[in-house]
Amino acid sequence: MVEGRSDASGGTRIRIGMVGGGQGAFIGAVHRIASRIDDDYELVAGALSSDPNRAIASGLELGLPRERAYGSYAEMLEGEANRDDGMEAVVIVTPNHMHAPPAIAALNAGFHVICDKPLATSVEEAEAIAAAVERSGRVFVLTHNYTGYPMIRQAKAMIAAGELGAIRLVQAEYAQDWLTERTETTGNKQAEWRTDPARSGAGGALGDIGTHAYNLACFVTGLELESLLADLSHAYAERSLDDNDHILMRFKGGARGMLWASQIAPGNENGLRLRVYGEKGGLEWAQEDPNYLWHTPLGEPKRLITRGGAGSGAEAGRVTRVPPGHPEGYLEGFANVYAEAARAIRGARTGTAVDADVVFPTVADGVDGMRFIEAAVASNAEGNVWKKV
Amino acid sequence: MVEGRSDASGGTRIRIGMVGGGQGAFIGAVHRIASRIDDDYELVAGALSSDPNRAIASGLELGLPRERAYGSYAEMLEGEANRDDGMEAVVIVTPNHMHAPPAIAALNAGFHVICDKPLATSVEEAEAIAAAVERSGRVFVLTHNYTGYPMIRQAKAMIAAGELGAIRLVQAEYAQDWLTERTETTGNKQAEWRTDPARSGAGGALGDIGTHAYNLACFVTGLELESLLADLSHAYAERSLDDNDHILMRFKGGARGMLWASQIAPGNENGLRLRVYGEKGGLEWAQEDPNYLWHTPLGEPKRLITRGGAGSGAEAGRVTRVPPGHPEGYLEGFANVYAEAARAIRGARTGTAVDADVVFPTVADGVDGMRFIEAAVASNAEGNVWKKV
Amino acid sequence: MVEGRSDASGGTRIRIGMVGGGQGAFIGAVHRIASRIDDDYELVAGALSSDPNRAIASGLELGLPRERAYGSYAEMLEGEANRDDGMEAVVIVTPNHMHAPPAIAALNAGFHVICDKPLATSVEEAEAIAAAVERSGRVFVLTHNYTGYPMIRQAKAMIAAGELGAIRLVQAEYAQDWLTERTETTGNKQAEWRTDPARSGAGGALGDIGTHAYNLACFVTGLELESLLADLSHAYAERSLDDNDHILMRFKGGARGMLWASQIAPGNENGLRLRVYGEKGGLEWAQEDPNYLWHTPLGEPKRLITRGGAGSGAEAGRVTRVPPGHPEGYLEGFANVYAEAARAIRGARTGTAVDADVVFPTVADGVDGMRFIEAAVASNAEGNVWKKV
Amino acid sequence: MVEGRSDASGGTRIRIGMVGGGQGAFIGAVHRIASRIDDDYELVAGALSSDPNRAIASGLELGLPRERAYGSYAEMLEGEANRDDGMEAVVIVTPNHMHAPPAIAALNAGFHVICDKPLATSVEEAEAIAAAVERSGRVFVLTHNYTGYPMIRQAKAMIAAGELGAIRLVQAEYAQDWLTERTETTGNKQAEWRTDPARSGAGGALGDIGTHAYNLACFVTGLELESLLADLSHAYAERSLDDNDHILMRFKGGARGMLWASQIAPGNENGLRLRVYGEKGGLEWAQEDPNYLWHTPLGEPKRLITRGGAGSGAEAGRVTRVPPGHPEGYLEGFANVYAEAARAIRGARTGTAVDADVVFPTVADGVDGMRFIEAAVASNAEGNVWKKV
Repeated sequence: MVEGRSDASGGTRIRIGMVGGGQGAFIGAVHRIASRIDDDYELVAGALSSDPNRAIASGLELGLPRERAYGSYAEMLEGEANRDDGMEAVVIVTPNHMHAPPAIAALNAGFHVICDKPLATSVEEAEAIAAAVERSGRVFVLTHNYTGYPMIRQAKAMIAAGELGAIRLVQAEYAQDWLTERTETTGNKQAEWRTDPARSGAGGALGDIGTHAYNLACFVTGLELESLLADLSHAYAERSLDDNDHILMRFKGGARGMLWASQIAPGNENGLRLRVYGEKGGLEWAQEDPNYLWHTPLGEPKRLITRGGAGSGAEAGRVTRVPPGHPEGYLEGFANVYAEAARAIRGARTGTAVDADVVFPTVADGVDGMRFIEAAVASNAEGNVWKKV
Repeated sequence: MVEGRSDASGGTRIRIGMVGGGQGAFIGAVHRIASRIDDDYELVAGALSSDPNRAIASGLELGLPRERAYGSYAEMLEGEANRDDGMEAVVIVTPNHMHAPPAIAALNAGFHVICDKPLATSVEEAEAIAAAVERSGRVFVLTHNYTGYPMIRQAKAMIAAGELGAIRLVQAEYAQDWLTERTETTGNKQAEWRTDPARSGAGGALGDIGTHAYNLACFVTGLELESLLADLSHAYAERSLDDNDHILMRFKGGARGMLWASQIAPGNENGLRLRVYGEKGGLEWAQEDPNYLWHTPLGEPKRLITRGGAGSGAEAGRVTRVPPGHPEGYLEGFANVYAEAARAIRGARTGTAVDADVVFPTVADGVDGMRFIEAAVASNAEGNVWKKV
Repeated sequence: MVEGRSDASGGTRIRIGMVGGGQGAFIGAVHRIASRIDDDYELVAGALSSDPNRAIASGLELGLPRERAYGSYAEMLEGEANRDDGMEAVVIVTPNHMHAPPAIAALNAGFHVICDKPLATSVEEAEAIAAAVERSGRVFVLTHNYTGYPMIRQAKAMIAAGELGAIRLVQAEYAQDWLTERTETTGNKQAEWRTDPARSGAGGALGDIGTHAYNLACFVTGLELESLLADLSHAYAERSLDDNDHILMRFKGGARGMLWASQIAPGNENGLRLRVYGEKGGLEWAQEDPNYLWHTPLGEPKRLITRGGAGSGAEAGRVTRVPPGHPEGYLEGFANVYAEAARAIRGARTGTAVDADVVFPTVADGVDGMRFIEAAVASNAEGNVWKKV
Repeated sequence: MVEGRSDASGGTRIRIGMVGGGQGAFIGAVHRIASRIDDDYELVAGALSSDPNRAIASGLELGLPRERAYGSYAEMLEGEANRDDGMEAVVIVTPNHMHAPPAIAALNAGFHVICDKPLATSVEEAEAIAAAVERSGRVFVLTHNYTGYPMIRQAKAMIAAGELGAIRLVQAEYAQDWLTERTETTGNKQAEWRTDPARSGAGGALGDIGTHAYNLACFVTGLELESLLADLSHAYAERSLDDNDHILMRFKGGARGMLWASQIAPGNENGLRLRVYGEKGGLEWAQEDPNYLWHTPLGEPKRLITRGGAGSGAEAGRVTRVPPGHPEGYLEGFANVYAEAARAIRGARTGTAVDADVVFPTVADGVDGMRFIEAAVASNAEGNVWKKV
């Protein structure tokens, strides 16, 4: 009925090992589901916690054989390198400060890497990863998962095709409410590390969700940020990282924008929303209702494009699994990043050049995101002044 | 963050073989994705088409070994019964008229069955399947997948807990538009068999989507239908099955309702919508925006309950995978039926009684659905009169 | 900015006298506001209650001079007929059973009449009014106010222009919740007379809101009802009139429909909603969000037409006052019926033929509405059988 | 049914004369309708254009007698002062640069003034009007009409009652699209003067809509702005005033906010939207759907409060005319400002102190708005730096 992607991908499954994502974690399970949806991957190994005992217990719980439930990522890299059926790619789902060490080690050992965002805790660290990618020639995928939503692909394609004319305005926001109270003092593991500069880096909401909004804005519009001016704040004196960010943006070519990221806005769950306006029309999309894309061509009735429905084109179609009116969600969007990664990794298996239309966030996006964070923190520290990115 | 289900289910995967769902099919791929999401199943065999060559080619395409890519379901039942690592359950995703033969054969051979809806093409056939289930003692799951949506579980729980008081009104509808034109003459395989009484049975829209709406209404409210009055029609003389159904309903206990099913309502993709009103409040849910449930307690502000958010209870939580604000969709709802089935099948492995809270549509729902279709067709044929169900 | 109607209508104001609508009434105040919005009318007299003292007190409260605050409509008709500056039209806003007597008397005395709906309490009474209109040659306006909404005019124009092709389906509903409990026993004046057959006629929800939905469906589609089948019920044994109506409809030319009217559906305030589907597209409109009209041309993206915005045509424009994005509401819709009536009455002043585009519900609509009620009551009484209208 | 305001206000109508608002104008007609809705006012005189001939013709068209259709406001002030039945209040609906002269003259002549916003074209001019108000003791109403919406009153009352706790965030926006192209070169009178600094003052979008958003944010939250940082731009070199404004705000007490005003955002008609977040909950309101107010108490389901429905309190009720579910719109919101003004003016007639609950924007709001514009222009000119207001 829908000309979307099939689950008959033909090649053998890509063997992956996971770093982090054990008992009590959240995003690890998301990655595992995303990897399974299209049957492109098989989890064969894990170093699922920084605590060796917990790492091993978590691996057994997930059904890994004892010898591939490793106590550390170093052991995993070594153990898997020595197997004929060893893993081909490493998935990194640790807190931010633990991205760079396993990523660089994995790349150096010749593995592909799929890494959660933000890339690292500093531009310096990010650039070190980028250098390792360059040296290794391996595939590196940064899971800015929102880029995987079909209607985001549709928006990107429409803008690239000039349907909005030159872009003038970009209004991006990502609002949540889970840090409205001092959640980090209540035993919430997520809140603990995300409000801790030692584990998160210099950005709080900025790194956790601000970079998502920023990445999405750039991904959809194809614009590059020139400079920003940031007003960062936190609701409690005891909280050292930002929980609310008000940012002005200027893009190369003249477009301007605003970005609002907040974790203290009651009633907002994952309110990631993007509005883009050009000379000839506008687009509006909200992550919580991701199967819809508003297109407002100037001087014509507003149009609601639905995923897979009339007006939804090939770029959305290739990351679509079910017919229009059957909603796809967060996990499918995430799975689309994995599906694109699979094409690239399979291409690398055979030395085949990857199709031009394989689209996923790379280490370059990760470095860019770290520069965004660094510039915003500096702008704020210097009294809310414009900073080049 | 959310106390939902984990993908660490512990037991070994359930081995499944699929009947139907090969090249060009739609729902087969949906079942396969649904079976993978929680890692509870492994597809080990298939008889994926009624055409043996196509069946085998489809199996190979899905990565099955040649000897388990069978040419017919009979061969598969026999072949798998003789293996130590043979399949444990059969998934049936053929057109309606090909549900009963493989289902009964599989049950007789001692396999569990997961079967697409509607159960069969007649009450007689449905009862034969029910008898086979009874005889075999095997698990039989009918994939009325909409029952798997978390907010549907939430609605069911709220009504069962008396939050709406006695139910008075049930307004159900399922509107589509894909048969607005004579789609069945354009090479659309789905349209061909769904408008063909030989393959679909006596109900067109009635069987395809009307039974979904009817099943969902009963599932959520816990009500049983007493009688119905149906006005069925089709937009083209050349089309022999109904494409639009207007049905009045009376439930045991006094509640009344309307059901509208249509495949000729332009602008509707999969507009399944349920509204239930009781003495003390109302509930409203729409499949295209499934993460929301409106609760309207009489005399209080309207409440929008979001999946996993405040007010969303344990029954929704156990079929939830990601935090509120990260939308789940059709595939996850479908996967929830598979997850429940896995609990039951694993229970059967060990002879353990299944938890009371394992909830999935059974063969009894399938027989009930066939009676609904039969009564509606009879009511219409006799001039739109009330028929007991 | 918007090419809508101006308040510079040029002619002198039309002098009106009101029957009913005094202290404690609801709809009288609505009529008065509606009459003022475009400055086409001036309230010069009133017989505002069936209780003479209350009638006079209400008139003084509204600023009428003592001699024109009449104790009864008979006195008003006589008093005003004898004045040079006497009223030209009578506005009737009494309970249903008190529509016919003043309407017929006013018409016989040569006054134009603006009358609330439903027209009367029986077909017989309705036909008597129609005969009086015929004899008198006076303007008779039935305030089916929802016909005045600009987006309803837009919908009507689009269907008349063939944009939907032949109409196949009409799904109409009007849901409220104010009779969920036994409101009529709590001193609520509205609930008292609306649940009393002596004052309301044979229809409860049917007359109060069902006729609105029915009238709107016919107004927008231009279809005529051929027959209906009704299932009427009430939630309490002590309540003698229907509070919930489930109706199947067949229109001349083959279109079918459903109508649901309810006053026991918690969470619904004034949920009047119309969905129309034809061979080439659909339209959807909801009274609570009246500035929007969904147009779903088959095979194209959904379009949201906004009042006064792109795609909104001349028929909507002439009943529009403010630019798009500035919402108009119930009172403006009501005022549009008054504005159309003013054109007709001013035409009658000078003997000028009224413009072809003056559109308002007439006594014929009122008779039709009474036939709808009568047929529905008969269908229900005879066991839910089809009745010609 | 609803305990709202009645149209039986009892006192005699307030006699008004209008400056501006003649042929081709927009906002004048809006004021006239608003003044009529509750029957509190009577238009008795006018100087409806700066062109004497057009002024007179416009007056006659509106039905004014020839001697009260004045050629200039000076003549009107003199003529009306000399009549026993002369006007009591002057309504000023001219372009911004023509607010101060008639306002000051009218106040000096002892008339009350109802004036459109923004108050003037500079802080200096605004303060001159404020001084004249002070000297005269007359009522001065600035028609920031959005403050009149019932759900805005509801929001204000809830925040004042502490339902959100201390306010932390204010996200305000007002987006339009009518200057996306160079509308001012196409004969559009509105666009001409609104893009002309000589007639609009130093703010373009800033004065036209930015001040509305700013005023509404302060009105609802009760907060006072401490400082702002503005990035103003215009899409065309030939356009000298801003058509897009990105503003950061800091309020006394520590709340922060963003304000976006744009007239180049295709698809936005009058997208005025306010979101406020406090320690305990959030509120969200949009002008285009004004009968709804979202309340999101932390840790509870989202609530949708409807105008007049459950949860809607007394402050909304007193500016409400029709039952919940019957939408009120822009004109009723505007009329509410007029209704409040009528209470104040009638109080002034008798020397009675005005009720504490009479709520309307005053000259102080106007001065504040001009300071907002001035600070924003200065911030922008100095390189987007913080400016005290």
